[in-house]
Amino acid sequence: MTGMGGTGGDTLVKSLVRGGVDVCFANPGTSEMHFTGALDREPRMRCILGLFEGVVSGAADGYYRIARRPAATLLHLGPGLGNALANLHNAGKGRAGIVNIVGEHATYHRGLESPLRSRLEDIAASISDHVLLPHSPDDLARDAARAVAFASSTPGQIATLILPADLSWLPGAALADTLPLSPVPLPDAAAILAAAEALSRGPSAMLFLGGDAVRGRSLELAGRIAAHTGCRLLSEGYNQRHERGAGRVRVDRLPTTPVSAAVARLADVETLVLAGSADPIAFFAYPDMPSRIAPDGCKVLELVPVGNPTEQALEMLCEALGAMATPPAPVMSRTAVAPVGGALTPETIGEVLAALLPEQAIVVDESVTTGRGFAAPTATAAPHDWLSIMGGSIGFALPCAIGAAVAAPDRQVIALEGDGSGMYTPQSLWTMAREGLKIAIIVFANRRYAILENEFRNTGSGVPGPRARAMLEIGAPDIDWVKLASAQGVEAGRADDVASFASELARAIDCAGPYLIQVDL
Amino acid sequence: MTGMGGTGGDTLVKSLVRGGVDVCFANPGTSEMHFTGALDREPRMRCILGLFEGVVSGAADGYYRIARRPAATLLHLGPGLGNALANLHNAGKGRAGIVNIVGEHATYHRGLESPLRSRLEDIAASISDHVLLPHSPDDLARDAARAVAFASSTPGQIATLILPADLSWLPGAALADTLPLSPVPLPDAAAILAAAEALSRGPSAMLFLGGDAVRGRSLELAGRIAAHTGCRLLSEGYNQRHERGAGRVRVDRLPTTPVSAAVARLADVETLVLAGSADPIAFFAYPDMPSRIAPDGCKVLELVPVGNPTEQALEMLCEALGAMATPPAPVMSRTAVAPVGGALTPETIGEVLAALLPEQAIVVDESVTTGRGFAAPTATAAPHDWLSIMGGSIGFALPCAIGAAVAAPDRQVIALEGDGSGMYTPQSLWTMAREGLKIAIIVFANRRYAILENEFRNTGSGVPGPRARAMLEIGAPDIDWVKLASAQGVEAGRADDVASFASELARAIDCAGPYLIQVDL
Repeated sequence: MTGMGGTGGDTLVKSLVRGGVDVCFANPGTSEMHFTGALDREPRMRCILGLFEGVVSGAADGYYRIARRPAATLLHLGPGLGNALANLHNAGKGRAGIVNIVGEHATYHRGLESPLRSRLEDIAASISDHVLLPHSPDDLARDAARAVAFASSTPGQIATLILPADLSWLPGAALADTLPLSPVPLPDAAAILAAAEALSRGPSAMLFLGGDAVRGRSLELAGRIAAHTGCRLLSEGYNQRHERGAGRVRVDRLPTTPVSAAVARLADVETLVLAGSADPIAFFAYPDMPSRIAPDGCKVLELVPVGNPTEQALEMLCEALGAMATPPAPVMSRTAVAPVGGALTPETIGEVLAALLPEQAIVVDESVTTGRGFAAPTATAAPHDWLSIMGGSIGFALPCAIGAAVAAPDRQVIALEGDGSGMYTPQSLWTMAREGLKIAIIVFANRRYAILENEFRNTGSGVPGPRARAMLEIGAPDIDWVKLASAQGVEAGRADDVASFASELARAIDCAGPYLIQVDL
Repeated sequence: MTGMGGTGGDTLVKSLVRGGVDVCFANPGTSEMHFTGALDREPRMRCILGLFEGVVSGAADGYYRIARRPAATLLHLGPGLGNALANLHNAGKGRAGIVNIVGEHATYHRGLESPLRSRLEDIAASISDHVLLPHSPDDLARDAARAVAFASSTPGQIATLILPADLSWLPGAALADTLPLSPVPLPDAAAILAAAEALSRGPSAMLFLGGDAVRGRSLELAGRIAAHTGCRLLSEGYNQRHERGAGRVRVDRLPTTPVSAAVARLADVETLVLAGSADPIAFFAYPDMPSRIAPDGCKVLELVPVGNPTEQALEMLCEALGAMATPPAPVMSRTAVAPVGGALTPETIGEVLAALLPEQAIVVDESVTTGRGFAAPTATAAPHDWLSIMGGSIGFALPCAIGAAVAAPDRQVIALEGDGSGMYTPQSLWTMAREGLKIAIIVFANRRYAILENEFRNTGSGVPGPRARAMLEIGAPDIDWVKLASAQGVEAGRADDVASFASELARAIDCAGPYLIQVDL
């Protein structure tokens, strides 16, 4: 500690808090001990432990989606960042802002061949928008302020600050001035005029929403435009945060698989107007299927580039079309009623979910194959946010739910999880229990990578024989999710029909902390 | 399928098998479905499913250590490789040979902004000795042969073959010729003479063993040299595979923490002769401690560079010293006796372990703090192999045990695991159960990152306050490892004193498949 204000670790923690980053999801090691020690001296920073780095990075993604401001992660050297990489990939695809603090060997130790020496800067560069590597206490103060500014800008950015251990234990420098955020990109007037002209032609045009266009005032404006012009409205296949349910404009999502369903959905679109979305691309390539979803000859107009804010452009577009006075339609009213009995199917599960979803619930969706029946029934449920996996790397929902629950402790979080995907980050359950987070975890246990059974056929591999099937099925042994939850301090129950699912879900929603339901399919 | 012999997936599987790579640890996705399909047509390839990629890469490391030949991994795009990265880091530090097959988007789809597009080549380069990216079926056949040759060379190398999906579904090319391995580096005659001169000076010199010098004939030769010259013998702090126990030359390991213990161990060494080892470097830097362990002024002679085979050089050295007729000393006889009661301490645990260790057991050690008492008692146990974590990235032991057990189904594998480190790759238990692997898993449950409590102090952070302690303790909630095992089909029991630990360990060794013991400390 110095008169100036402590160690470099203190400088870093204080720089984060000053920039509004006051939640840190952490999996620390030796090189991060001074950061950890600084937590005792800065109570405004809330630090949440994850037992695996993929939990940490996925939580930061979920936090950003709900809080609309970045959290920090605390990671341990190159391999720790490697463990965080998959969920950073997912976060980056959704343009989340995150400040990664990656502890590294001391400046004079980095070049030596110690066990944990790695190509940390290369790993960081592969997954970050910005990599910052301070060499002195002054650098650290300045780079901390830069990292916060990058992550807090619009669109969000992933800033990775590599923290040599000695900079965290040396006396800290004075805090750097808070830096201005990157300027928010402004709408392009010519793009608005072109979009207005195209959309005024009615149903041959489609307003294709992505990014923040599926929530708040953007969503309402898109509804006005569709009601006024008769153009079609659709969103990307995955949305970072989609505001849905009663009282909101209904926007369906582009199907993502099979590709033929996506292609059919856009088959007669003559002009596609992109509002925060990308020209849609198939999730994977398949033999004899196109990579680009829109039909040949379809004109594509970019109203708002991917990642940029959409509200101002949609407002100008609405005005250009004279649509401001048109009420958005259809605004759905709440109609969902739970089925009272019968077998579990994607449809009946979706109906129970729709009926019981509390107001302002946050649904984190990694239900993979089972979840394909959920969209229609939940469209008329109580208003809620629907968070999808943005980068396709599974193991996302449980960590993301942690971050969402930390950002919104008063809202019910519901994680829809496959039994295959849930096993990538099962340690998430422990953090949910430790923090007492209000999360209902619904695990759909079909004991197989059902999506891969479809994909085996879709890629033209034919019918799997016994040796291929062994790679697609995850029974033998069956995973007992009730025990897996209980082992980590999370209450849990089981459902195998509509009645038991409805009562378990009601119980989970009554629970003050996390509750897991294993749904046997 | 073509008359020539199937798809590119078939070409790849057959190329691996032809090169002697007939075990594949796999976590496949859509882009790997044709590889998976090819398994049905090539029964010589054994494919083992992992529910998480860190299991897969750690298993390949363990397999190499025991089988002395590479396994393949099957991974899904950039994020899948990211999840495998930490254990690939560990494997690379131990010079394991591994062929990573990483499925990638089709050649014509790679440049499009799909959800799973990533900087795959950069991620691969950060962790591989060789990255191969075929662009045509002929490339694939050739690159598969190259990858096998790289991984099978001495020292082992990590070869990552990026497999665009279309190359796996297009008709396969003819298999490429098997390629010659990289030439095995030959001993340096001048280095041998210099080492002989230094070691003949007796105890002021130290023969410092690494790599394969701690097993087989190399170990015996090192014993002869020490007996003949009076020089000191020590090994690196971590060994890929250390042959220990009754009937073998005893070589202690350099302590790794605290640094002061390592420095003390080398304090009066005047000449350090490196045989497959590196000039020792502290695991981490600490304030006011050196990074380099050997004393200033200590002369360092490189007999065999890191990773190179040591046997021939040690034989020439032995001859140069006239030590061939000197029996290696001391050869230890088996003296271990189990304590019959009392409290569990690192020492009593080590004594029980030493007494019950079956002949030719394979011990995979990630016991972190608890394990520091194990070295002395087990030195005189039945002959066994001791596998240490080479790269310091925790989450290694459970996956490594899988690979070791697959390579040596007739030997008992014993995984020593911390409760903190075990939670990085707990999915390993499922693969152990599915494959019925003979692994005793001993989890030392101290409910804290005990090593970090030490490191907090060692790095000069003082005494952790309540907020720092929350990052160092992993109780609240306590993890129930018996349930965690049972949830994944692994039998388990609990021990809280010497008697119960001994009976549980005996039970685990009697078990035909995996058995987990939670040791409550």
